[in-house]
Amino acid sequence: MTTPDGRAALTAVYRDALLGDVIPFWLRHGLDRDHGGYLTALDRDGTVIDTDKSIWFQGRGAWTFATLYNTVEQNPAWLDAAKSGIEFLRRCGSAPDGKLYFTVTRDGRPLRMRRYVYSESFAAMANAVYAKATDDGQATEDAMRYFDAYLDYSFTPGRMPAKVEPATRPTKGVGPLMFCLLTAQELREQLGDVRVRGRSCTEWIDWSIGEIERDFLKPDHEALMEVVGSGGEILDHFDGRQLNPGHAIECAWFILHEGKLRSDPRLVRLGLTILDWMWKRGWDDEFGGVFYFRDLRGLPVQDYWHDMKFWWPHCEVVIATLLAWTLTGDEKYARWHRQVHDWSFRHFPDPEFGEWYGYLHRDGRVSVPLKGNLWKGPYHLPRMLWYCWKLLDASKEADVIAKGRGSRPAT
Amino acid sequence: MTTPDGRAALTAVYRDALLGDVIPFWLRHGLDRDHGGYLTALDRDGTVIDTDKSIWFQGRGAWTFATLYNTVEQNPAWLDAAKSGIEFLRRCGSAPDGKLYFTVTRDGRPLRMRRYVYSESFAAMANAVYAKATDDGQATEDAMRYFDAYLDYSFTPGRMPAKVEPATRPTKGVGPLMFCLLTAQELREQLGDVRVRGRSCTEWIDWSIGEIERDFLKPDHEALMEVVGSGGEILDHFDGRQLNPGHAIECAWFILHEGKLRSDPRLVRLGLTILDWMWKRGWDDEFGGVFYFRDLRGLPVQDYWHDMKFWWPHCEVVIATLLAWTLTGDEKYARWHRQVHDWSFRHFPDPEFGEWYGYLHRDGRVSVPLKGNLWKGPYHLPRMLWYCWKLLDASKEADVIAKGRGSRPAT
Repeated sequence: MTTPDGRAALTAVYRDALLGDVIPFWLRHGLDRDHGGYLTALDRDGTVIDTDKSIWFQGRGAWTFATLYNTVEQNPAWLDAAKSGIEFLRRCGSAPDGKLYFTVTRDGRPLRMRRYVYSESFAAMANAVYAKATDDGQATEDAMRYFDAYLDYSFTPGRMPAKVEPATRPTKGVGPLMFCLLTAQELREQLGDVRVRGRSCTEWIDWSIGEIERDFLKPDHEALMEVVGSGGEILDHFDGRQLNPGHAIECAWFILHEGKLRSDPRLVRLGLTILDWMWKRGWDDEFGGVFYFRDLRGLPVQDYWHDMKFWWPHCEVVIATLLAWTLTGDEKYARWHRQVHDWSFRHFPDPEFGEWYGYLHRDGRVSVPLKGNLWKGPYHLPRMLWYCWKLLDASKEADVIAKGRGSRPAT
Repeated sequence: MTTPDGRAALTAVYRDALLGDVIPFWLRHGLDRDHGGYLTALDRDGTVIDTDKSIWFQGRGAWTFATLYNTVEQNPAWLDAAKSGIEFLRRCGSAPDGKLYFTVTRDGRPLRMRRYVYSESFAAMANAVYAKATDDGQATEDAMRYFDAYLDYSFTPGRMPAKVEPATRPTKGVGPLMFCLLTAQELREQLGDVRVRGRSCTEWIDWSIGEIERDFLKPDHEALMEVVGSGGEILDHFDGRQLNPGHAIECAWFILHEGKLRSDPRLVRLGLTILDWMWKRGWDDEFGGVFYFRDLRGLPVQDYWHDMKFWWPHCEVVIATLLAWTLTGDEKYARWHRQVHDWSFRHFPDPEFGEWYGYLHRDGRVSVPLKGNLWKGPYHLPRMLWYCWKLLDASKEADVIAKGRGSRPAT
């Protein structure tokens, strides 16, 4: 790939991949025209290879299509696509007690319920952005209700069955806090600073960031932890030591995004700190790309696919480094962004059938050629392309970027 | 590695690896001298890197050490090692309702309970072989009680919470039937043909094999399935299509073993059929070794580590091919055995610190250098070395083997 030189060319890379490749791929292959909603288990060429539906993805896909409708152009095909996921969620997403399933059949019959509530978080975000697109009152109500349920299950002690016996080893994860932060940001963006479970979105954001900073950020180790003890202590076991650099860097850009909105240098510094530490933990100096898991102390991790290169951490690191660069003008972030952007665009795209592969070996060879499954669909990749395009389009930061890009050699 | 030529040299390879490397490694590094039981999370050099204990492995380890005591020599260190696991299980294995945990802390406090009951199956086998070693009445009773619980949870409809909603898609797995077969074989070997839940061990064996043959064996596809619908139908979804050749070939040798004990050519033919089909599915013609997962229709599998080479399927295929060879004298099995034996002994052993790595990339490079975790410990590898050594030592088959080995070129 010839990396574009300068702001306009880089902007076009993201925009064109989004509008000319990724979104058309999912509109063509991923819409269920018989039962509504999205089919994400697609082979390399878009053939459906499993009709079971991810409930996460009904929300994630609807978020993507409605976001494009709201922020790019009022394309009725995008609104129809968003509506399809929203209506499938309404019709088939919930168990009788209201909790969302993890998977259902193509026609919406229940398959799996899981403990956790990420389905609720995605459904809240999807409904919020769909409400903005349509003024649909039920969507507004559902967004609030799903966020309420998400907060209830995630943070009411004892509400969600614990994976590890809490009487022996009380633990908490950074994931639920990151989703609280992201969902609150999205609801505030679409619905205003609404109150859910006694706090405004901004208050939930402040609370999440405070918890993350207090309990998961470890200056002594220069790391953001994934799981800690209930008092924030490091758990010196496989799970406790396991770092997920791409996930932590996703957290970094959520915080950078908040810092930028508020022009809050403290938040920007916090986000940059996480990015700096976790880049060092995650970047593969030998083969390039971002490792999936690392151990805090450099010990072997339990998960044997630890050194694979997944599409989604790369998407998150592309966003984070670009955002860090626009916020600071620091050439280090320009360099990192170029490294991860170039590695990603060289290895993940499928030149024949479009879209990105999801799962590469450490050296960049494709492991499984599918384009989607329960975890991969129209979300991380289009979100990255959209966010980076829009970020570069905004004028103030673009000046800094252009300067940064201009100073680097063409590759 | 120079592969030994002839029966005696091959016998010595298995015996020496077992008694000179693998068992000393676990006795040196894996015994918890403070709290009893086994620590399996060991780094390459044997350093403990996680003190949490697998309850599976308290049974598996006790089975291994007691089996050596019963069948190799009455080494008191082996009996002590077996006793340590048995006593840890008695003291710390069970929840208040009697169901065994999945993991506990080093000192035996509960960490995780899971739906399934493989802990019970391993505990039954361990107690059966320990009872034979010691005439310990409680061990006999525990073996019967754990097998009873295993059968109850596995086969009483509704007793174990289903992973997939049974009203939508009733499924069953080959795993519970394989463990029924294996556990019944072990109890019968150690305790005689005892009756548990209304059937003798032999009746449970016949029942398991009958279910496997009727519902999981697919002549049209030349495959043994892992998961099917309640009527044995193929489920054309990721999980339903997913084949695990090493697991299926483990099933093959359980059936071959039964056929040999009974001199039953029908069972031998069944075992050989599974081996023949799944060898073709699993052997990697490009890099050698056995793939972890394959798709029934050659589609991408959902699990992105599908092409890795794990130690345990290789152990099972080494056993199955050697057993097939001793039962038939067929040069094809000699060739397959040599292929998988040579590949395994060339790639898995750690020449510096001993024992085997567990997780290799497709081309045989080490992925994680640890020697144990919740799933790897003193079980598959020592079982394979012990079984193959003892199989070659038995005279009748050895003649066939010697003929087979003699006809092949030295490598």
